[in-house]
Amino acid sequence: MAPVGPVDGELRRRAAVALPAGVYGHVKAGERWPGSPQFVARAAGSRFWDVDGREYLDLLCSWGPIILGHRHPEVEEAVAAQHALVDCGNGPAPAMVDLAERLVGIVDHADWAMFAKNGSDATTLCLTLARAATGRKTILVAAGAYHGAPPWCTPEPVGVVPGDRAHLSYYRYNDLESVRAAMAAAPDDVAGIIVSPFRHDAGFDQELPDPAFARGLRELCDATGALLILDDVRCGLRIAFGGSWEPLGVAPDLSAWSKAIANGYPLAAVLGSERVRAVAAAVFATGSFWFAADAMAASLATLAVLEREGGVAAMRDWGRRFRDGVEATAAAKGLEINMTGEVTMPYLSFPGDEDRALADVFAAACADGGLFVHPRHNWFVSAALDDADLDLALSAVGAGFEAVATVSARA
Amino acid sequence: MAPVGPVDGELRRRAAVALPAGVYGHVKAGERWPGSPQFVARAAGSRFWDVDGREYLDLLCSWGPIILGHRHPEVEEAVAAQHALVDCGNGPAPAMVDLAERLVGIVDHADWAMFAKNGSDATTLCLTLARAATGRKTILVAAGAYHGAPPWCTPEPVGVVPGDRAHLSYYRYNDLESVRAAMAAAPDDVAGIIVSPFRHDAGFDQELPDPAFARGLRELCDATGALLILDDVRCGLRIAFGGSWEPLGVAPDLSAWSKAIANGYPLAAVLGSERVRAVAAAVFATGSFWFAADAMAASLATLAVLEREGGVAAMRDWGRRFRDGVEATAAAKGLEINMTGEVTMPYLSFPGDEDRALADVFAAACADGGLFVHPRHNWFVSAALDDADLDLALSAVGAGFEAVATVSARA
Repeated sequence: MAPVGPVDGELRRRAAVALPAGVYGHVKAGERWPGSPQFVARAAGSRFWDVDGREYLDLLCSWGPIILGHRHPEVEEAVAAQHALVDCGNGPAPAMVDLAERLVGIVDHADWAMFAKNGSDATTLCLTLARAATGRKTILVAAGAYHGAPPWCTPEPVGVVPGDRAHLSYYRYNDLESVRAAMAAAPDDVAGIIVSPFRHDAGFDQELPDPAFARGLRELCDATGALLILDDVRCGLRIAFGGSWEPLGVAPDLSAWSKAIANGYPLAAVLGSERVRAVAAAVFATGSFWFAADAMAASLATLAVLEREGGVAAMRDWGRRFRDGVEATAAAKGLEINMTGEVTMPYLSFPGDEDRALADVFAAACADGGLFVHPRHNWFVSAALDDADLDLALSAVGAGFEAVATVSARA
Repeated sequence: MAPVGPVDGELRRRAAVALPAGVYGHVKAGERWPGSPQFVARAAGSRFWDVDGREYLDLLCSWGPIILGHRHPEVEEAVAAQHALVDCGNGPAPAMVDLAERLVGIVDHADWAMFAKNGSDATTLCLTLARAATGRKTILVAAGAYHGAPPWCTPEPVGVVPGDRAHLSYYRYNDLESVRAAMAAAPDDVAGIIVSPFRHDAGFDQELPDPAFARGLRELCDATGALLILDDVRCGLRIAFGGSWEPLGVAPDLSAWSKAIANGYPLAAVLGSERVRAVAAAVFATGSFWFAADAMAASLATLAVLEREGGVAAMRDWGRRFRDGVEATAAAKGLEINMTGEVTMPYLSFPGDEDRALADVFAAACADGGLFVHPRHNWFVSAALDDADLDLALSAVGAGFEAVATVSARA
């Protein structure tokens, strides 16, 4: 594993003083392999460069926001044009209406749109709307699912108090019986069920939704009056151009969006059905930067490029070829792997690698080979990837498997 | 009052369909006078233009974020330079460390910084940190204070459930006895006291802090081990270049920042003392766009310009001359007014105007005179305002008072 670069090391030393203990949150290098770069100098298209000048093919895409590649020209032009007029003003720009209409046109279940900044603004607002719409309190949440980092859902409940989760109840993903049991435990009080398009809990093999599970959630909601909330923050636009459960034919009442919808510009959205319109108009949903226009212009351009160029199909095709290549490479080396989840958001693990030590070895060797992947989180395919990138990625993965095989043989 | 412009009207009609019921949140035109423009076409320096081409001197500053004027050249240059490298990447850019060091250097009580997107991200994180640092649950909040729109603090509790506020207790601003009573009601369980630099509850006359109240809060916290949290989201950089209570000599343990710190770019920050460092390092505080570099570069440039040009003193001077002028104008017309709060964040009301009908008449007439002020919310002075702007503002205020006098005489 390459050591921490000198520039990165110096920035880390300064960050350990000026921040609580260096860089925090999901971008913390300590969550990855030893020597993983912490600070980023530059990014363009499918590539980024760390502060010590090392270049990487980007298969993490800033944990999802980058879907067309970094600084896509058409998005940049749209933002520049909007920014020359107004970004954060005394009211929204017309782009807010354009974008709301566009999203309502794209996403089947949506009759209206609201905007915010964080994915967790959107998921939290969905809970509030479900409670307001039903007059009930309880929200059913899949155990282990990630819906953001506010107190009600952070995976590391430091400073969390009982009230934060007083009206939550948990079920198991893909287990309709566990949903029924959770509903029975809160009779007449279930306001909504929040669910991810597929099971993508960090650090675990991923699981695609059983279509019967998805349909069953819809039926349970219809039978009880609860609202179905799809948390499409991480998956949105990487599974389907509409909502991620449109291919399954299951329509939520509310969906939460963020990450990829503006190709890296800060934006989140809640999309909802007519049934929720009145309470959505009554809730006080707001933030200082929620109406800013740059990110809305970026989103309009991102959607235009994705649609015109068939970006979702292209990502799925690249992702499918990548997975086939990864699995063939592993098989050729006689290495057992689990590669799970949607092909545009794959997660790779090694059986028995409980402490993710092999995953670290793998990701470090990939980085040495010029490919940036995360050892404990799913990766993200972007529409900027081409055939040459596929060759590079598979070559780096081969080096990663080689390193894992060497370490395994030694053990 | 001027009618809604044709372009604004058409956008409103579309927004009523594609959004739940038109534009929502604090920017909703319905919160202002009839005919108030909803959509903004363009903004530059101290001015903005609505979509029907009407120009306004901006005394709202996008509810605070704009402190140097819209699209200040030095801020724009800094953002363009950063953006050409990377904004939302796989890790922070070096600007994150630069900005943390800068804020720690500027704000006396701060030993470290963390960043987020919304003011409410920062206030919510402060609550979490206080609870984690003390192992206690209860937070004391001033009744009627605005700390954001998440369920624990939204002023319109639609969809709010009991758990959201289970561990909050309320005191009255500037009333130390009420703080003591709230503390006594939660013996040994008070984790923190959150307080605004001055009382700026929307729709009410503002109240500056009694220095004995501020010192008393600090003493109560010291005596009980609770943390003092200053919510500097709205006031930060408009009262003092350091934290807003530095002039009072009262140091909080934590302060929450947002709005003006990046001249309109989306950024929030929590600044904290050594005492809170360990728990701040342990909490999982994160968001997809929290580490993005553009807004951090904007903040560094904003701080540089404010410091170099003595921006805070300049705003205070303009604000003082404006208030003197407004009060003299009112007196000359024999009109009673209340103009309250910091001179850089004034609020104007008319005695007995319970339904704010006179405030609407006033704000509408100001707008006709080319000055944009809010009838139910404090205004914001920016460093972009000059002597000619003062003349324009006072002339518009005179027209506003004229309109109020006419309506009052008729009543």
